[in-house]
Amino acid sequence: MIKATVYVTIKQSVLDPQGVAVQGALHSMGFQEVDSVRIGKYLEINLDTDNREEAEAKVTEMCEKLLANTVVEQYRFELEG
Amino acid sequence: MIKATVYVTIKQSVLDPQGVAVQGALHSMGFQEVDSVRIGKYLEINLDTDNREEAEAKVTEMCEKLLANTVVEQYRFELEG
Repeated sequence: MIKATVYVTIKQSVLDPQGVAVQGALHSMGFQEVDSVRIGKYLEINLDTDNREEAEAKVTEMCEKLLANTVVEQYRFELEG
Repeated sequence: MIKATVYVTIKQSVLDPQGVAVQGALHSMGFQEVDSVRIGKYLEINLDTDNREEAEAKVTEMCEKLLANTVVEQYRFELEG
């Protein structure tokens, strides 16, 4: 069993409206020291394989095809186990 | 400037419908080796302070009050810089 941890984030050059909204909410709650907020997705995927190379190829394919919209998002992942 | 990276995940005992949906989609795309998927939020928060202790206290407060619903979610964070 291999555990993949995937991070999908909006590219730096793309506006993150959810982050801007959370930043505004934090400011209005008195957290004036918040300079910027960016929000992404965090996925834990358990894979029923012990072959690391296969797992890496499969997770890359999942990210490209479903998990990330590579036009505006970037992804990275780590494998464990 | 301190950068906080916050991970908000659904507690293990709580059903994650978004994760179940993504798992179903991956299966139907032929990724049979996917055993389980859990989805959380990933936040990058830049703080306009250089005081690590203050930053830690503030980020904990932000998580408790806004970023995580501690009834069904858990959070952890890392500070950099």
